[in-house]
Amino acid sequence: MIPLPLQIIEPTLLLDEAKCRRNIQKMVEKAARNGVKLRPHFKTHQSHAVGQWFRQMGVQAITVSSLKMACYFAEDGWDDITVAFPVNTLEADRLNRLAKKVSLNVVTEDAATISRLDAVLNYPVNAFIKADIGYHRTGVDAADTETIDAMIEAFKKSNQLTLKGFLAHAGHSYNSRSHATIQKVHYESVDAIQTLYNRYAKLIPNLEISIGDTPTCSICEGFGPATEIRPGNFVFYDITQAAISSCTKDEIAVAVACPVVAKHKDRNEIILYGGGVHFSKDVLDLGNGNRSYGDWVLLAENGWGDPVPGCYMSKLSQEHGTLKVTREMFDRVAVGDVLLILPVHSCMTADLLGSFTTLDGKRLEMMDKRREYFLD
Amino acid sequence: MIPLPLQIIEPTLLLDEAKCRRNIQKMVEKAARNGVKLRPHFKTHQSHAVGQWFRQMGVQAITVSSLKMACYFAEDGWDDITVAFPVNTLEADRLNRLAKKVSLNVVTEDAATISRLDAVLNYPVNAFIKADIGYHRTGVDAADTETIDAMIEAFKKSNQLTLKGFLAHAGHSYNSRSHATIQKVHYESVDAIQTLYNRYAKLIPNLEISIGDTPTCSICEGFGPATEIRPGNFVFYDITQAAISSCTKDEIAVAVACPVVAKHKDRNEIILYGGGVHFSKDVLDLGNGNRSYGDWVLLAENGWGDPVPGCYMSKLSQEHGTLKVTREMFDRVAVGDVLLILPVHSCMTADLLGSFTTLDGKRLEMMDKRREYFLD
Repeated sequence: MIPLPLQIIEPTLLLDEAKCRRNIQKMVEKAARNGVKLRPHFKTHQSHAVGQWFRQMGVQAITVSSLKMACYFAEDGWDDITVAFPVNTLEADRLNRLAKKVSLNVVTEDAATISRLDAVLNYPVNAFIKADIGYHRTGVDAADTETIDAMIEAFKKSNQLTLKGFLAHAGHSYNSRSHATIQKVHYESVDAIQTLYNRYAKLIPNLEISIGDTPTCSICEGFGPATEIRPGNFVFYDITQAAISSCTKDEIAVAVACPVVAKHKDRNEIILYGGGVHFSKDVLDLGNGNRSYGDWVLLAENGWGDPVPGCYMSKLSQEHGTLKVTREMFDRVAVGDVLLILPVHSCMTADLLGSFTTLDGKRLEMMDKRREYFLD
Repeated sequence: MIPLPLQIIEPTLLLDEAKCRRNIQKMVEKAARNGVKLRPHFKTHQSHAVGQWFRQMGVQAITVSSLKMACYFAEDGWDDITVAFPVNTLEADRLNRLAKKVSLNVVTEDAATISRLDAVLNYPVNAFIKADIGYHRTGVDAADTETIDAMIEAFKKSNQLTLKGFLAHAGHSYNSRSHATIQKVHYESVDAIQTLYNRYAKLIPNLEISIGDTPTCSICEGFGPATEIRPGNFVFYDITQAAISSCTKDEIAVAVACPVVAKHKDRNEIILYGGGVHFSKDVLDLGNGNRSYGDWVLLAENGWGDPVPGCYMSKLSQEHGTLKVTREMFDRVAVGDVLLILPVHSCMTADLLGSFTTLDGKRLEMMDKRREYFLD
């Protein structure tokens, strides 16, 4: 409807660089104000170029979700990398390539894995005990001192591993829909790590505690005994974060540009070239019995505006997206137009689309999962 | 638990070649028995190597879901290709590269697109009118003769386009959970295309009618006036197709091998390295209040066996999969084992994992979405 200044021919991930840099700047300032290190999770963007924007604002340490992703960022000079996923000792080769080159931090949650990991390592690695502070996905229950004490003993017996402290993720903050509930999760998280701190500060020298999900890091201040925070999604945000109340809709820095390929007047539906292989099948419950796979926004002077009221992507198959619209908006769209859709989950959408196009037409590459990054 | 004969270190898509070839053989025989051409949908496997198995059984024409995918298969010598997606005229360059080299068939559903398409084409292209026979995703209502007649007129005025007939997809067969409901969708589909045939057989010379989704093509016989069928998923099947009753569970030809990275005894949960970026977020309603992101199978003599009763992947985040298991099975799994998971939607899972590993260790590459295939 409103012509896009870029030549878009297929589903393309647009990145508003100014919004993205503001999101980074805000989080850098929050970390500084609260006396914690910012170790952003780079799984959201998976891009050397976006990583550079963090570096330009003084960020020196990062988080990733796989050893391959650690190799990719190590290749670009990042040398303090936490892999925030239970360490997979089957990837011994990648572990050693990384450990040889960078300060590598891994996460573990049982004593047997510590000795198995130690056995495959040829270089020193730092380790964190994954503590479960309420999300119940992974980690040792923060109150399970028996298991934690056994792990500390296992670290003492290891040759290559140095225990640095605890790492936790309050992923249940994603169930929030208001600042008050995000705050509640945050207070409980800080309480849990305070208990860990009180018990282990004397047992683990220079105890480090790493926490941080995008909702609590976006909204809350005061991280108790935490030494660092690891939010990731905030770099782009998405309509899920807006629904959680972590961000405003105008802080969302990515949108997928999708060609219109068909229209169905009898049901006010517009068919977009843009489906599950582009957006992922993540879905947002709109609370009124409807579910959205993405919100439609219109092009504005310097990017895009707020979502068009009463319109949302209601269905998604492999390549097709069905945009449910109002009668008035239906008539303003033609087959061959390109529409912009804010994603439900920007991490997954970026992972699928594989590159970014900035609003001034720069193409930013992302990690290629088919490649191996050797660091040689 | 049972050691895998392959060295798996990360989420890896295993392909049981024997099962896959049997699935292809069965569909080739069904098409021959029913006097229709088999034009399989290659979006499921996106692989030259698997395409060769079809070719070895006499298949000469294929379906794809994007113009890039058409270029990829044209590069491997396929020269009769239908892009079963409303034609996206913004991809004029790919359309012309294909039209120059192969017999290209596109799909359209409005008269305006026909003239816009004709204007960008430098080479002849065959076209099908997309007919809606009950799925209500895309297509002209099969009873809307006014629109169809207007399209026929537009084709007559075009220079490069030849109208071949109608293409339809009864995607609502996926709502079935028994042979009886699949049959019902099939009878209604055949009725709808019979009506189209009766009206247009004399107006469109050598009228072709293309139908075919995996459920109806797997279960039903007799395709009325259809000249070809286009099933795709049957090449691998998945647990959704088994729930629909399109296949038995032992016909499912792909499984994702996932390392075990953590265990939580208090809730009988096993954490797998294998999440939404590997499986997609497609989910199967188990009908008992639970939802599965994948079924766990054990290694057997020549591949894998049936799903382990009472166990299923209950949660999925970006890299983590949570496998809910029985107490007995919990104790048989250790961190560091590799488990096999049958996917909910094999098309999406293959698209994400990007290659196949056969049970004898061959690696089969897939289309690389980051590449452009030029056909020169």
